[in-house]
Amino acid sequence: MSDEQPTQRYRATVEYDGTPYKGFQRQANGHSVQQAIEEAIYSLCGADVRLTAAGRTDTGVHALAQVIHFDIPAGKTPFRVMEALNALLVQANERVAFLDCETVGNDFSARFSATGRRYLYRIINRRAPLTVERERAWWIRKGLLDVDRMNEGAKRLLGTHDFTTFRAADCQAKSPIRTLDELWAERIDEHEIHIHAAARSFLHNQVRSLAGSLKLVGDGKWSADDLKQALEAMDRKACGPVAPAHGLYLSAVSYRSAEGASQPN
Amino acid sequence: MSDEQPTQRYRATVEYDGTPYKGFQRQANGHSVQQAIEEAIYSLCGADVRLTAAGRTDTGVHALAQVIHFDIPAGKTPFRVMEALNALLVQANERVAFLDCETVGNDFSARFSATGRRYLYRIINRRAPLTVERERAWWIRKGLLDVDRMNEGAKRLLGTHDFTTFRAADCQAKSPIRTLDELWAERIDEHEIHIHAAARSFLHNQVRSLAGSLKLVGDGKWSADDLKQALEAMDRKACGPVAPAHGLYLSAVSYRSAEGASQPN
Repeated sequence: MSDEQPTQRYRATVEYDGTPYKGFQRQANGHSVQQAIEEAIYSLCGADVRLTAAGRTDTGVHALAQVIHFDIPAGKTPFRVMEALNALLVQANERVAFLDCETVGNDFSARFSATGRRYLYRIINRRAPLTVERERAWWIRKGLLDVDRMNEGAKRLLGTHDFTTFRAADCQAKSPIRTLDELWAERIDEHEIHIHAAARSFLHNQVRSLAGSLKLVGDGKWSADDLKQALEAMDRKACGPVAPAHGLYLSAVSYRSAEGASQPN
Repeated sequence: MSDEQPTQRYRATVEYDGTPYKGFQRQANGHSVQQAIEEAIYSLCGADVRLTAAGRTDTGVHALAQVIHFDIPAGKTPFRVMEALNALLVQANERVAFLDCETVGNDFSARFSATGRRYLYRIINRRAPLTVERERAWWIRKGLLDVDRMNEGAKRLLGTHDFTTFRAADCQAKSPIRTLDELWAERIDEHEIHIHAAARSFLHNQVRSLAGSLKLVGDGKWSADDLKQALEAMDRKACGPVAPAHGLYLSAVSYRSAEGASQPN
């Protein structure tokens, strides 16, 4: 952008249906959530921006509350930016929406200022294939998952560990050490189970790897101690089958209260 | 079907995502839920059946529990029929699933034996366009619907009336008289409202016409008495805008307990 035009940083919460996208991040081949939003921003103000997001969700993964920031020429109220971008996204038939938008200081980063990420993993456990909820939840056809067993296992993974077992082979993070603050399963109704996971940050495929291994505990193939041993193996091969992308939702990102607050403009 | 081969009547509950279908009923142009199921039945047993359903849902309308019956060559257990049809429907990439299946006597009709139909209408009332819930609920962008007002209005429509105002111009029913047993709105969370409607049977577009008019009461454009007056006008032009198909779900069909029960075969 030109040096002459002052810019303003905006922070926004966005929701998306991950089904039609090759993940959040821009790709050489295939449409991404990032591209959808950046094209809407370009339509709005002619600024060819690169936005920053709290989490890079994979192909098919959804977000209920992804957080992004971007810098555009100053002057528009955050409300107008949100409304205009939502109208442009609808017009472009994108499945992405801005839930809120505010101005922030240039020291705020959606990615580096984040102090916590939270994911939801939806399982529907029934004989019948999914219809209305297809691409929205993991269909587990056989058996009835035991949520108490899943929680027995999940407890053993809390805290700071080397999560090598539960990260993708192509994970780019320098360290496999992460601190898992929350991991628990909840029965929503006769058929639906939610797994909740919270940490400052996650490794690539960590939540799906944890969900897939917890499923093995839930259906009795693994004991809670087997899950602990899988962790301690620090070996990708010890992981259960990775749960499918379409059950996963980035559900919240947290920041220290001072950061990301509205700035007078 | 050949007279020589004994047939068996099966009753089943089916769920579907109405998005990709031109409604339930077979159409000359466009794929229907009925066709999807009948093709699966043909693949299963070579029987070119015409099934009967409790309700003919329109293009884009979903079902959580549509009830159907069909006659096929006897010999297969209902469980096997259900499992095989579900496998075939998944294979054909249809968004239709059998939730249950049982054998019934030839006097059972999914349509004519039904003693009640129940519909759910989902509204999401927020500024942001829908993403994950697009084609699953009616997006109402402006204002906050007042559920208490909607219920004040809904009460005035209960009972037996001439529902001419609330039926499609092309409705085929001989009489516009129906008995509305239930009509009420429920706030699910900050953004979501459900409208519940129950009757022995409904006119074409009746639930969507009621939902569209209740929305006018909810946002203050109509009073509860305006709704009553619209009913009393017995004039299609007095109806509010018909609510979109994609918020509507056929949620239950009821039968007298003796009917539709499993028969020894």
